[in-house]
Amino acid sequence: MSHNTFGHLFRVTTWGESHGPALGCVVDGCPPGIRFTLADIQSELDKRRPGQSRFVTQRREPDEVKILSGVIEDGGGLVTTGTPISMLIENVDQRSKDYGEIARQYRPGHADYAYEMKYGIRDHRGGGRSSARETAARVAAGAIARRIVPGMVVRGALVSMGDKAIDRANWNWNFVADPENPFFTPDPASVPVFADYLDGIRKAGSSVGAVIEIVAEGVPAGLGAPIYAKVDQDIAACLMSINAVKGVEIGNGFEAAKITGEKNADEMRMGNDGKPVFLSNNAGGILGGISTGQDIVARFAVKPTSSILTPRRSIDMDGNDVDVMTKGRHDPCVGIRAVPIGEAMVACAIADHYLRHRGQVGR
Amino acid sequence: MSHNTFGHLFRVTTWGESHGPALGCVVDGCPPGIRFTLADIQSELDKRRPGQSRFVTQRREPDEVKILSGVIEDGGGLVTTGTPISMLIENVDQRSKDYGEIARQYRPGHADYAYEMKYGIRDHRGGGRSSARETAARVAAGAIARRIVPGMVVRGALVSMGDKAIDRANWNWNFVADPENPFFTPDPASVPVFADYLDGIRKAGSSVGAVIEIVAEGVPAGLGAPIYAKVDQDIAACLMSINAVKGVEIGNGFEAAKITGEKNADEMRMGNDGKPVFLSNNAGGILGGISTGQDIVARFAVKPTSSILTPRRSIDMDGNDVDVMTKGRHDPCVGIRAVPIGEAMVACAIADHYLRHRGQVGR
Amino acid sequence: MSHNTFGHLFRVTTWGESHGPALGCVVDGCPPGIRFTLADIQSELDKRRPGQSRFVTQRREPDEVKILSGVIEDGGGLVTTGTPISMLIENVDQRSKDYGEIARQYRPGHADYAYEMKYGIRDHRGGGRSSARETAARVAAGAIARRIVPGMVVRGALVSMGDKAIDRANWNWNFVADPENPFFTPDPASVPVFADYLDGIRKAGSSVGAVIEIVAEGVPAGLGAPIYAKVDQDIAACLMSINAVKGVEIGNGFEAAKITGEKNADEMRMGNDGKPVFLSNNAGGILGGISTGQDIVARFAVKPTSSILTPRRSIDMDGNDVDVMTKGRHDPCVGIRAVPIGEAMVACAIADHYLRHRGQVGR
Amino acid sequence: MSHNTFGHLFRVTTWGESHGPALGCVVDGCPPGIRFTLADIQSELDKRRPGQSRFVTQRREPDEVKILSGVIEDGGGLVTTGTPISMLIENVDQRSKDYGEIARQYRPGHADYAYEMKYGIRDHRGGGRSSARETAARVAAGAIARRIVPGMVVRGALVSMGDKAIDRANWNWNFVADPENPFFTPDPASVPVFADYLDGIRKAGSSVGAVIEIVAEGVPAGLGAPIYAKVDQDIAACLMSINAVKGVEIGNGFEAAKITGEKNADEMRMGNDGKPVFLSNNAGGILGGISTGQDIVARFAVKPTSSILTPRRSIDMDGNDVDVMTKGRHDPCVGIRAVPIGEAMVACAIADHYLRHRGQVGR
Repeated sequence: MSHNTFGHLFRVTTWGESHGPALGCVVDGCPPGIRFTLADIQSELDKRRPGQSRFVTQRREPDEVKILSGVIEDGGGLVTTGTPISMLIENVDQRSKDYGEIARQYRPGHADYAYEMKYGIRDHRGGGRSSARETAARVAAGAIARRIVPGMVVRGALVSMGDKAIDRANWNWNFVADPENPFFTPDPASVPVFADYLDGIRKAGSSVGAVIEIVAEGVPAGLGAPIYAKVDQDIAACLMSINAVKGVEIGNGFEAAKITGEKNADEMRMGNDGKPVFLSNNAGGILGGISTGQDIVARFAVKPTSSILTPRRSIDMDGNDVDVMTKGRHDPCVGIRAVPIGEAMVACAIADHYLRHRGQVGR
Repeated sequence: MSHNTFGHLFRVTTWGESHGPALGCVVDGCPPGIRFTLADIQSELDKRRPGQSRFVTQRREPDEVKILSGVIEDGGGLVTTGTPISMLIENVDQRSKDYGEIARQYRPGHADYAYEMKYGIRDHRGGGRSSARETAARVAAGAIARRIVPGMVVRGALVSMGDKAIDRANWNWNFVADPENPFFTPDPASVPVFADYLDGIRKAGSSVGAVIEIVAEGVPAGLGAPIYAKVDQDIAACLMSINAVKGVEIGNGFEAAKITGEKNADEMRMGNDGKPVFLSNNAGGILGGISTGQDIVARFAVKPTSSILTPRRSIDMDGNDVDVMTKGRHDPCVGIRAVPIGEAMVACAIADHYLRHRGQVGR
Repeated sequence: MSHNTFGHLFRVTTWGESHGPALGCVVDGCPPGIRFTLADIQSELDKRRPGQSRFVTQRREPDEVKILSGVIEDGGGLVTTGTPISMLIENVDQRSKDYGEIARQYRPGHADYAYEMKYGIRDHRGGGRSSARETAARVAAGAIARRIVPGMVVRGALVSMGDKAIDRANWNWNFVADPENPFFTPDPASVPVFADYLDGIRKAGSSVGAVIEIVAEGVPAGLGAPIYAKVDQDIAACLMSINAVKGVEIGNGFEAAKITGEKNADEMRMGNDGKPVFLSNNAGGILGGISTGQDIVARFAVKPTSSILTPRRSIDMDGNDVDVMTKGRHDPCVGIRAVPIGEAMVACAIADHYLRHRGQVGR
Repeated sequence: MSHNTFGHLFRVTTWGESHGPALGCVVDGCPPGIRFTLADIQSELDKRRPGQSRFVTQRREPDEVKILSGVIEDGGGLVTTGTPISMLIENVDQRSKDYGEIARQYRPGHADYAYEMKYGIRDHRGGGRSSARETAARVAAGAIARRIVPGMVVRGALVSMGDKAIDRANWNWNFVADPENPFFTPDPASVPVFADYLDGIRKAGSSVGAVIEIVAEGVPAGLGAPIYAKVDQDIAACLMSINAVKGVEIGNGFEAAKITGEKNADEMRMGNDGKPVFLSNNAGGILGGISTGQDIVARFAVKPTSSILTPRRSIDMDGNDVDVMTKGRHDPCVGIRAVPIGEAMVACAIADHYLRHRGQVGR
């Protein structure tokens, strides 16, 4: 991985700041002959787009993607040519004045101070390169990645918000995609609970974290490698690279540390169709870094956004103690919009491993 | 990252199987002029070495490291020359017969099945390349990495085992290193608790997981990058690449998802010495992917070893249902020996970022 | 190197086809605080721009660069922030109809057949991704690379065209940059010779090759590494990646193979200023892959463009024998415009090594 | 490429100094199921081995390779498992005293001065890491690479030595491999010419350069990519990374710069078997960076070794002017032993592209 690139054979390079003219990505290594439409990408971007409910930032960005290279038109859609796919999204609704008074302050919980220590120069507007607007480029890349592994479906859901959690017994993937569901929760019963809770948070000028679960179905067994190219390692890196993520787990994750080997082992039997069947999936579809053919399951923890209306103690660039309050327009729970981002990153990680496996092993 | 290499400027490539003649690593990109002794490396290896108490595998391996290149002798010690450092550890106590009857069976929870699906060929003895013996090479590399960032100290401790956890009020780093402490726990009061618990597990032919915490002190602010070269992302990848790890978190990790922005933000004030002071460290020393100068704190969850005496249902290579029991010699809690491995991986990840930062930014 | 990326710490990713809407690049890893103006980049692009004399293609492209990220305005110019620099150049004068009749033919000497064998799908217009228009992106990246190594100056010159060569006794760098000099030749006396020769070639519907020499002054000693990160190796790769290049040499190059060790060795003496002085530069400024502080000298051979009006025998996609004649607008000697491209690639290669050296060695 | 690693999916990392205990390599990414014998590797190493005639260095090294990982025994031979292959060659005949008096002098034409400028520390014995002994590891890796592309045969020959060249009309591949042929020349008539010439050079305490040609047959069309993953670019980088190489060319190389487009274009016709036939091979089997299915042809220029008995002017580490004469044991023409090394590097470069192509395109 370079500073702004991830992947090996399926490689994504992103660029752009929150308040510059545009942001985008270059997807390199996409096989030729992959078919999709601009609408396929746009619909993924729309899931991540701001301003769609009172629970997310009110910044209004159409997030309209343009494809500048790497495809040709064919039969009403697009087909990849094997050359790099450049995608561009213009920034429309930058309000730099929102940031005027915090240009020289380090917002607690933000990257401001660390960023200044690194580069000695900083585009403070909207967090510059640290802004979550960069994730639009990931989602666009992920929309292509989803088409690379035949039969693979990657979906995500919000499973907890602050101290409220879903009831897994109610899990319904169709409900996650329901336009009336503002939270990507799979549990219809959780909607009023989350709504009340988040309204309170929002009105208090506060924010709250969330946990997201990503499930990739249809991943063939054999992707990954036993040591430093583990599928779970690359999924962990991809998810941890999303803004505000503080933890990642695979399968039963931290729960595995609490139980015995008998309980944790996923037993196997031959199925009636002559194919192996796993009797459980504590491993989250990955053993020894290699996919088993079961669903790949990953979860990640998103911290509460640090942009809050409640003043916090901090310092400024001149070394003065200050109290910082971030007005602007912000998500009371950035974890909501992290769902399509997490899906995109998992799709990219697996697509890369699919191509690498095909290269090394030839199957 | 390649299949068996990690890092960018400080790069580690490992090789070797559990039951081959030897294992080792090549450390590339180590700056010239770094001084250490063979004993410095050996003492790290000894912490990871099997057979040192009844709580770990009884395989007897001296794990004696030989350095074949990249250093010259100088003043009683060694000094790096800037060329690749090749290190080799011979395997001594391989008992391949232990594995005779499971050569064609897929042990539940092990990589056997996934490995076969990937490569179609498998050195089943001791797990082959999937064996935790590979981690000796990481520890050797980590011993060099520790010397690269001036003033950095990386330490680790076991903070829970199964459903038993330490009392953080008793945290004592000196006790972790005490030779009478078989668990790398920082809490002296936890020793009898863990000992009783693990004796029970061991006698029952069972196994149990653990959580390890790694703390890196003395890391300068400014390492990392905001997008795909986040320090936390590379630490997560490095820890997730360790055998049996199922989860990683930074700072307060999954806890951050449960709390509000006010509580989570690490406030700042100017210290009496004119330097910024953080009033808490929920971030674990990393904000926006960049180190803040605070202690870097990471935790990882190790699952219970899948090699247990209790029979589990599985299948064999011919598609027969079988019951598998793994005799051999195994760790009832592989999490114990994961402590020095985690330290090594965090040291390598930070050393790499230190060199990359120096390269890009020049400070 | 990825398929469309080169460099390690200073990394350039390019994208775009000859007849798509635009082309561009992302420059990643550029240190923060580098100052330049848009005009600095544009003036490099103008050197490579088509349509400036009768000796180059008549395609009219303004090649106007837009910078979309990675810089902020400061004091009338731009300053890098350390984040990826995205640059975009729109294609204006695509005449796709020129290519109508060769859409299904493989032009001899072109990549058409090989390209089809690789991807099975091909944007034939203007060569698609194989077009030399891609090199505009390299020149833009090179304009930034030139500013990274303090004091470095990279210049190039055409030293032979077909069977005509310059007289090195007349070498004049100032003349190379003279706007009246259509060939980037350093020898004023060569202009009428090259002009007559190339007029004949052009009127005959033919084309001819050239040799370009690049000289980098002010490169500090110590860049590179003895094995697989040799400066000359990376320069060779960078130059060989330019369209139509068939050979690369460093210093006295192939001549070195003909002479004895006594003649080839560059002797040294201490200078009056107490600094080492080399008495010759057969090595081209690089010994054992590491820069010596002398001028770095590289040459590359550009083949004659394969787009000629003279019919050549070939086949088409249906397996028919055909005669191919490429009308369109083409350079009778692509070597001319290769001069600024070669400069850019050498500048990028050295900038990358400068950052890598700083990272690994810290000096 | 890292400092000591090359390749992407087929990756080779080498380590070791001339006068250390051993040298070796780790071959990562080799597909599982590749069969070979230890003798296959040893026979390649024997071609490069010193001390086999009066025309090469008299250092006596058995160059016996040990394989420490990545293979299992099967049917009298070895088969790869897909895990990293570690190979080790012990140094036997180091005579460090030969170098006593030049420990503090910079030998003209050698990397001594540049090396010191880079690292500030130097293992002067035998050139340390800059020694051509490192190339034994490349040859071992190449012996495996040769088996990866089905049907590929890579052969090399010395085509000129100093100002003496072979007669291409006499080209005989079988003669190259003749044990009575001390020069890897394909022209039997050249042997007495080269022998007389080199005896004169050797007795005069001098040295001379050479040009080597490598031909890879059986390479499928479609390997490579149009921009920064050109097959010729990677071959150029691989050959330029060999010690003492100063120039590389593909196909007709620098000759292409002298001729017209009509002469240079390789025309095509459909063959009687319904397959495309090229009527010439000026391109050396590569167009637009992608293999065409023709023989891949590359040449490289090796400079005369700088270790000569004739004194040359230089300086020492203390800044004194000195005269340097290198006694030791050296090759009067290092180009001879460069033949198997060049073969190995071309085999590695193509093997890597074969796997990458399979990964990206899936054919």
